[in-house]
Amino acid sequence: MADEVILLDFWPSPFGVRARIALREKGVEFEYREENLRDKSPLLLQMNPVHKKIPVLIHNGKPVCESMNVVQYIDEVWSDQNPLLPSNPYQRAQARFWVDFIDTKVFEPADKIWSTKGEVQEKAKKEYIEALKILETELGDKTFFGGDTFGFVDIAMTGYYMWFEASEKCGNFSIEPECPILMASAKRCLQRDSVVKSLPDPEKIVEFAFKIRKIYCV
Amino acid sequence: MADEVILLDFWPSPFGVRARIALREKGVEFEYREENLRDKSPLLLQMNPVHKKIPVLIHNGKPVCESMNVVQYIDEVWSDQNPLLPSNPYQRAQARFWVDFIDTKVFEPADKIWSTKGEVQEKAKKEYIEALKILETELGDKTFFGGDTFGFVDIAMTGYYMWFEASEKCGNFSIEPECPILMASAKRCLQRDSVVKSLPDPEKIVEFAFKIRKIYCV
Repeated sequence: MADEVILLDFWPSPFGVRARIALREKGVEFEYREENLRDKSPLLLQMNPVHKKIPVLIHNGKPVCESMNVVQYIDEVWSDQNPLLPSNPYQRAQARFWVDFIDTKVFEPADKIWSTKGEVQEKAKKEYIEALKILETELGDKTFFGGDTFGFVDIAMTGYYMWFEASEKCGNFSIEPECPILMASAKRCLQRDSVVKSLPDPEKIVEFAFKIRKIYCV
Repeated sequence: MADEVILLDFWPSPFGVRARIALREKGVEFEYREENLRDKSPLLLQMNPVHKKIPVLIHNGKPVCESMNVVQYIDEVWSDQNPLLPSNPYQRAQARFWVDFIDTKVFEPADKIWSTKGEVQEKAKKEYIEALKILETELGDKTFFGGDTFGFVDIAMTGYYMWFEASEKCGNFSIEPECPILMASAKRCLQRDSVVKSLPDPEKIVEFAFKIRKIYCV
């Protein structure tokens, strides 16, 4: 019997997109179900009763929640092609360390850039660039965080890469002059087939960001 | 050549203790080095330049940071005995999900119980018990979160179990009547040989908690 794979997701989500990319890297067919986050489906509430958040991967009826947990699950289940985590324990630990860094030190200021203004926003922009510069140092002369191959950390960051333009426009600043090496790697990630197929139109994200910004910054 | 394993740690840390327990579950000999967090050693700053936090596991000169990342690394390197994570991908994803829950929904209120007072502390106590009740439901009739065996989620929680008495005394409340099933599992965890050897005297933790509480709640 073929696997039944359903993804509960929301199109501009930097977290949802991670699951989409991982599934496409593995060539897994899946049914995408768009959620209305203001009126969540009974299925979402049933499958993720603790956090009630997307993305949720439902694999043969069983839910997996939290985006990078979903990515790791996908990597472990469909392990025969395109490994996303390295096999070496030390390199795996390094990858998990950087994903944790992204989900705290990049997430927190990124989230404030579109949802605040004035001094709070200025502080968030500074912290965001500082975090991106640390990642730029880690990237060094590698093509991807995964080395020669697009991997776990790259997938975690691609959710932010797809929001770069919206962040820059909401915050009236520019990332590339501060982090040229990271930006070059971001461009390589955004050109990948699995990513192109998973990302919405960047202009739509900018439009969406300004729409929700209006609600938060009245 | 034998492995050189050094753990940079701080005795009352609920995070540091996770690494200690994991090493002892695996029977790994290690050198424990106590850090003074008000005057961090050059080695700690060199080995964890991003967060400058304990625990850091230094294995043959290479650092691994962030407590549950350290535990997973230990599980992968010394994989021949006492597996801490299950081998089934779905069960692994569930274990990682609950560890993430613990490190957000348990950590945040737990941290406030000893460091705040008044309304903020009351709110934290309520949130703490709510989070513990969710874990109690997940535990159900299992001996440990890991089922019949002490595992990844149990190690994550043991850091909090060792602080239960201090939390109760700082917050003037009682966990057992609210979460009897969780408490029974906590007692089983605290009796394990690897845990007994890794935990400080509970009275010393209470004493430490009140000492730092004085600094935060003037």
